[in-house]
Amino acid sequence: MKIAVLPGDGIGTEIVAQALSVLQALGLPFEFEHAAVGGAAYEAHGHPLPEATLKLAQQADAVLFGAVGDWKYDRLERHLRPEQAILGLRKHLGLFANFRPAICYPQLVDSSSLKPELVAGLDILIIRELTGDIYFGQPRGRRSAPDGPFAGSEEAFDTMRYSRPEIERIAHVAFKAARQRNNKVTSVDKANVLETFQFWKDVVSAVHAQYPDVALEHMYVDNAAMQLVKRPKAFDVIVTGNMFGDILSDEASMLTGSIGMLPSASLNEHGQGLYEPSHGSAPDIAGQGVANPLATILSAAMMLRFSLGQPEAAARIEAAVKTVLEQGLRTPDIMAPGCTRVGTAQMGAAVRAAL
Amino acid sequence: MKIAVLPGDGIGTEIVAQALSVLQALGLPFEFEHAAVGGAAYEAHGHPLPEATLKLAQQADAVLFGAVGDWKYDRLERHLRPEQAILGLRKHLGLFANFRPAICYPQLVDSSSLKPELVAGLDILIIRELTGDIYFGQPRGRRSAPDGPFAGSEEAFDTMRYSRPEIERIAHVAFKAARQRNNKVTSVDKANVLETFQFWKDVVSAVHAQYPDVALEHMYVDNAAMQLVKRPKAFDVIVTGNMFGDILSDEASMLTGSIGMLPSASLNEHGQGLYEPSHGSAPDIAGQGVANPLATILSAAMMLRFSLGQPEAAARIEAAVKTVLEQGLRTPDIMAPGCTRVGTAQMGAAVRAAL
Ligand SMILES: CC(C)[C@H](C(=O)O)[C@@H](O)C(=O)O
Ligand SMILES: CC(C)[C@H](C(=O)O)[C@@H](O)C(=O)O
Repeated sequence: MKIAVLPGDGIGTEIVAQALSVLQALGLPFEFEHAAVGGAAYEAHGHPLPEATLKLAQQADAVLFGAVGDWKYDRLERHLRPEQAILGLRKHLGLFANFRPAICYPQLVDSSSLKPELVAGLDILIIRELTGDIYFGQPRGRRSAPDGPFAGSEEAFDTMRYSRPEIERIAHVAFKAARQRNNKVTSVDKANVLETFQFWKDVVSAVHAQYPDVALEHMYVDNAAMQLVKRPKAFDVIVTGNMFGDILSDEASMLTGSIGMLPSASLNEHGQGLYEPSHGSAPDIAGQGVANPLATILSAAMMLRFSLGQPEAAARIEAAVKTVLEQGLRTPDIMAPGCTRVGTAQMGAAVRAAL
Repeated sequence: MKIAVLPGDGIGTEIVAQALSVLQALGLPFEFEHAAVGGAAYEAHGHPLPEATLKLAQQADAVLFGAVGDWKYDRLERHLRPEQAILGLRKHLGLFANFRPAICYPQLVDSSSLKPELVAGLDILIIRELTGDIYFGQPRGRRSAPDGPFAGSEEAFDTMRYSRPEIERIAHVAFKAARQRNNKVTSVDKANVLETFQFWKDVVSAVHAQYPDVALEHMYVDNAAMQLVKRPKAFDVIVTGNMFGDILSDEASMLTGSIGMLPSASLNEHGQGLYEPSHGSAPDIAGQGVANPLATILSAAMMLRFSLGQPEAAARIEAAVKTVLEQGLRTPDIMAPGCTRVGTAQMGAAVRAAL
């Protein structure tokens, strides 16, 4: 089981170190290979996604990813900025299916911005298409406006695109995932305005014919952004495009109050995957030993389950995380009255002890 | 002062009737002209935005709009669906500046999904560009994919576009609005992924040079969707494009817990405007006399202030709304223990009495 380890920037190094120590404690035959990515890779090799890093990721069974980005790279040309690494990995590995659970842990209900009764027991799975849409659509660029009311003015443009096979495969992923859960899929679109998402809605509906046991509802993205706030527990699986998924998955994870706890997985058609916490590189607290490593540790558990065929090991990690929460251990981001404040390394050690 | 009155569908008729009765009670020389719009216009004239309705709107000083849409029109071809009326009005009247306040009324703090301390005193203004972006960008349609990994497959596409003058004029609107408030603008983009929004960010920054007294911050849209949940009171004015504004303004208004209270204004370069509640046509409660008319009544107040040069009359209406809330009158959507439940007409009558 070959795992590419890409810690990246900010708190990335610290949280990935803890996830690795937890994996190592399982006593399984993992082969870890480290590589630079993001700003760290730019500093060392002049590019956020060096050729060697990409090759390693392609050859590994799975990628364990920390986080990338720092304000200090804001002035670089776009193609050199840290986030290009993550876009490049998604594209070159074909990681079209992004799984982002938004779970509210019973012990952490009070850290949510939402009233406890709205989030207690919350368990949503957002499935975001990750290699299409306006993220990668060509053509794009700057030019003199060729037509329209501002013809002749300087303008910038991008192209939103989705083809039938791209929508079909992510729809299958969503319906299959719903079968393992509560058999409900909400497909989020903007069919009332966009051609792309009228097509999305049509194709998802057509695929649905093969899953008569799963309930399908269609919802406009603006309404979805509202319903997530109003009645988040009414959702089970949400499936949507790359752009809307970017926005809604972040909104949903923040609702739980514990984004520092939420893992994510990005899979391709061969089951290869990239696993990373849902949160970012948090340069403001990097190097202080206070970052919450649990999202990365839980991402490692997802990796064991989805890419490495080790569901029992995944379950052991998940149970250990539950145990440390029950023990009242908390990093600062989820600290609550009566609990014990711990740092990154202590939290990792506690999870290992609880395995 | 000529006002085009377009009640539309669902609860539109009921709520607009109350707003009109409040306007009439002011004793000012208004000239109201009614016209059909949305599904109602489709039923009566075969089109959601009949020529006569558009002409009336163009000639009026302001448009008072109810709401459009009903599930029963879902199967119509896109260009006949109710929401095309609102898109057509925006485009033909050039209503590029959409003002959507998200205010949490002190008396309604408890109806928010968010914890009271997070929303008490909340007062954000979202300024959404309303005539550009992917909403109107050409080309768009369905075709066989001309290139990319799915070349030859059926696909749908849309074009996101913004020209320099479009971004400049909305940026000026935002900075000017901030000067009337707390002197802070958050420009929301996705410059790390989209050419359009890198340009947006550059142009907003350039316009900012003319407003050194206003603080400008840039924020990615995914982060904005999170920060609205986490620390909504940190915002003052948010300015963004049509698509992101659609999502974020709905999210923000739902945070307040009283979307039934929130007005909106959409203005063009000549100060002409369309005024409508932030909520939709709510076909599920239409005709029952229970809809909250306050958002529409407050939209009428915005109309007096922004398009009709009647700030005192606007203030009278706003004060009257405050009074009825203090009297404990509540429509079902904002009902709370100890308050008095009233219907649409009773609420309208109470506002008139309080004028
Ligand atoms: C860093 C950025 C390019 C990325 C995205 O927009 O997809 C991030 O926000 C995410 O959600 O993983
Ligand atoms: C009805 C729809 C076309 C419209 C939009 O997307 O702009 C609505 O959601 C709004 O925000 O006014």
